[in-house]
Amino acid sequence: MILNDIMEKESGKVVIVDLEQRAPARLPGNADTVAAIATPPGTGGIAVIRISGPSALELAARVFRGADLRTVSPRTAHFGRVIDEAGTVVDEVVATVFHRPSSYTGEDTVELSCHGGRAVAAAVLETVLRGGGRHAMPGEFTKRAFLNGRIDLVQAEAVADLIHAETRRAQRASIVQLEGRLSGFVREVREKLMQTASVLELSLDFAEDDVPLAEPAEHRRNLEESKRAIGMLVKSYDSGRVVREGIRVVIIGRPNAGKSSLLNALLGVPRAIVTEVPGTTRDYVEEAAVVDGTLFRFVDTAGLRETSDRVEREGIARTMAQLQDADIVIDVVDVTSGPDVEILLENERRWLSGIVPGGVGMCIALNKIDLKPESAVIQGAGMFPISAVRSTGIEELLAWLQVRARNLQPPLEDQTLIITNMRHRDCLARADEYLGNALEALDDGLTEEFVAVSVRNASDALGEIIGEVTTEDVLHAIFSRFCIGK
Amino acid sequence: MILNDIMEKESGKVVIVDLEQRAPARLPGNADTVAAIATPPGTGGIAVIRISGPSALELAARVFRGADLRTVSPRTAHFGRVIDEAGTVVDEVVATVFHRPSSYTGEDTVELSCHGGRAVAAAVLETVLRGGGRHAMPGEFTKRAFLNGRIDLVQAEAVADLIHAETRRAQRASIVQLEGRLSGFVREVREKLMQTASVLELSLDFAEDDVPLAEPAEHRRNLEESKRAIGMLVKSYDSGRVVREGIRVVIIGRPNAGKSSLLNALLGVPRAIVTEVPGTTRDYVEEAAVVDGTLFRFVDTAGLRETSDRVEREGIARTMAQLQDADIVIDVVDVTSGPDVEILLENERRWLSGIVPGGVGMCIALNKIDLKPESAVIQGAGMFPISAVRSTGIEELLAWLQVRARNLQPPLEDQTLIITNMRHRDCLARADEYLGNALEALDDGLTEEFVAVSVRNASDALGEIIGEVTTEDVLHAIFSRFCIGK
Repeated sequence: MILNDIMEKESGKVVIVDLEQRAPARLPGNADTVAAIATPPGTGGIAVIRISGPSALELAARVFRGADLRTVSPRTAHFGRVIDEAGTVVDEVVATVFHRPSSYTGEDTVELSCHGGRAVAAAVLETVLRGGGRHAMPGEFTKRAFLNGRIDLVQAEAVADLIHAETRRAQRASIVQLEGRLSGFVREVREKLMQTASVLELSLDFAEDDVPLAEPAEHRRNLEESKRAIGMLVKSYDSGRVVREGIRVVIIGRPNAGKSSLLNALLGVPRAIVTEVPGTTRDYVEEAAVVDGTLFRFVDTAGLRETSDRVEREGIARTMAQLQDADIVIDVVDVTSGPDVEILLENERRWLSGIVPGGVGMCIALNKIDLKPESAVIQGAGMFPISAVRSTGIEELLAWLQVRARNLQPPLEDQTLIITNMRHRDCLARADEYLGNALEALDDGLTEEFVAVSVRNASDALGEIIGEVTTEDVLHAIFSRFCIGK
Repeated sequence: MILNDIMEKESGKVVIVDLEQRAPARLPGNADTVAAIATPPGTGGIAVIRISGPSALELAARVFRGADLRTVSPRTAHFGRVIDEAGTVVDEVVATVFHRPSSYTGEDTVELSCHGGRAVAAAVLETVLRGGGRHAMPGEFTKRAFLNGRIDLVQAEAVADLIHAETRRAQRASIVQLEGRLSGFVREVREKLMQTASVLELSLDFAEDDVPLAEPAEHRRNLEESKRAIGMLVKSYDSGRVVREGIRVVIIGRPNAGKSSLLNALLGVPRAIVTEVPGTTRDYVEEAAVVDGTLFRFVDTAGLRETSDRVEREGIARTMAQLQDADIVIDVVDVTSGPDVEILLENERRWLSGIVPGGVGMCIALNKIDLKPESAVIQGAGMFPISAVRSTGIEELLAWLQVRARNLQPPLEDQTLIITNMRHRDCLARADEYLGNALEALDDGLTEEFVAVSVRNASDALGEIIGEVTTEDVLHAIFSRFCIGK
């Protein structure tokens, strides 16, 4: 199910056809016209100032010298100049005009493509705003697209996800949702549920006539089928979360085993692109790196050991909490910390089995082999002799992480629908629960009324996902995640 | 003199008319097609991938599903999808097509406007590059515009300056040059000089016929006029440099007078936008701030005092070097460092007059008045009682800096042509010198040959500015300043 489709006319010209033309605008039209810089901040060849709203053409025409933007054909680009009130040239620009409803927002839109400097883009925007119009709020262009029925809520969220995607996989997952696959699925299941609810309510009206409109067995089959499909999607969130947020690799070990050195070594591999987690105020170090298209979040923790020190115990409690969220755990063992490596490992394995949650991938990094080369001969699955400070054995460890990663996330080519958004998972989980209630009501031989209420609730929960059933609070929570210009 | 002009046809359609159509492409056409992300890196609503070269349309059509970009009208925008080899949707995009020579580069160009995320923009670019084409070099789009005769060298440099402009003033100075005012001036003077040289050479050929083609007095008048105009432009570089690079405010003072605290207080004023100078490895702290549209570069220096310590003496030598480049000097005096502030000031003034170069604006900040409130009564021009740690008196100091700044740079509304580029100044200074030689030769009654050679040299120096006379080295030096995508 795709929002916009493209039809080629014989003329070779292209028109954008809105497949959801039936969907009415969700709110009365926006009376005001907004503008913002739509490209990332910083310096580049091009910056784009987007103007959208009922007087977008008027507003753009006021500052643009070149063609008359009020009368040019839609979707044509025009070279010209932005001029301020004093008649001074602010920049040379290319203006592209889009007419409602065939624009991103569904409103009349002008995009001014100017030179990509901070001062110059700001000057063009200011000139536009002085001519009238208001600076767009964060996410306002996309919110308008939603309110004008151009996209549904899943697609609006997919825009934000797409923009913030750090890997190819995350980008793919977002584009699939932007293209409307999740929306299509939700719409389909929801339609079926609403139909079932209607039939159930109808049987209620005709109950006294003893004319059963549908068999309970048929209802059951329908509901079970929907519940199964929804349940699978809920489960897909586990890999969806990994796609979106990356694979959490928690590095643990006794104090001075070399955890921080290992973190640095893992990040230092040239092919890794390191990004910092901004505004982190947590008590552990977290660094993200994209390795061969997979996003890893490496977490360095406080050292773990038995202790009576209160402060240290708190650090350990926090590390234990980290372990609960781990996808993979690397335990760093200092091979020089005991005379016999085999005994060290034996102790370590016993200790690990007590603290690492089941189902979490785990390996042991035998660190400091440069100081005790004889320990490098230790063999075993998930066992890596390394020297963190010398970056020995790191490639092998990363290769193992890649293999584990492959099990945690769908292959890049996989087209299976997965959900990556916690809000979607929560709505789906609620729908799943309501359908459970409905089935129970059927089992218990309760009246159609009871069953129908639960089915309607499930349908509403699905409606929330795509924004058919929504509140201003939900919208605010979603669009405030956006930055200005989106 | 403006490169592109816009003509409205009766149809209301607009065509871009190249006023310099006569100017031939400067090199044989580029055989290859290049692509790059043209918008700043980072996340935003939109990113633009620019494809330029002989097979731009072909290349874009290969990955774009929607209209056939090879056959659509130029300067039209088309909604569609970028698809990779496997048929997977990479992103939903708007493609705008420009045909040569009416594009930025003068070549066939397609701009793909996709979602503004790092991964998604990179994925679209990669998909394009896998279809053929090469990643553009830094500045390559603008270099192609130059090589194809779309813009001259001054305009190409103005693009880079415009993109990096940090203030409205710098942006204005760049747009004036992009619009071709400096180029027009240079072209005009150069034409006159070439004519003079021709006449001089001609008189040489006809020398034996005793037919003077022009009076020496007339030559003199022409050359003097050109020299005067060029000389004024050379002088304008002083304010041009300030517009471009900002006003250098060097903060000096004895150790512990509170120089760093003052720097922080100046930067801490809410309206100041602070930017760091990247990659600074110098021995002083420099911070830039835009205050009411003026760019200041505040330099915190090593403390100055008489000393025999070798390391400290070196610090002082560096501070003295900073003073040579200063536009304004703030001397910070600790009012608590002596019992009598008047005597302190007397000593300070004597000391300052010995080290601050003449003509440099200067003031004294009487710091730590919170510890010695009675000293706040000290009056005098360029004297500011402050408390750096409490941010007292900082507004007054900034207001004074603003007044000084106004004397150092042209008013925002001033349309006088100024040069901001050191390369231009050097070329103009050389032209000025050659014209001086020519005038001397006239004075000395040397043959027309001598005079003509100097005039030709002056003309060549001017030709270098706009790129009519240039070398690959000069081009490389200019375009390597650009980033990729420009």
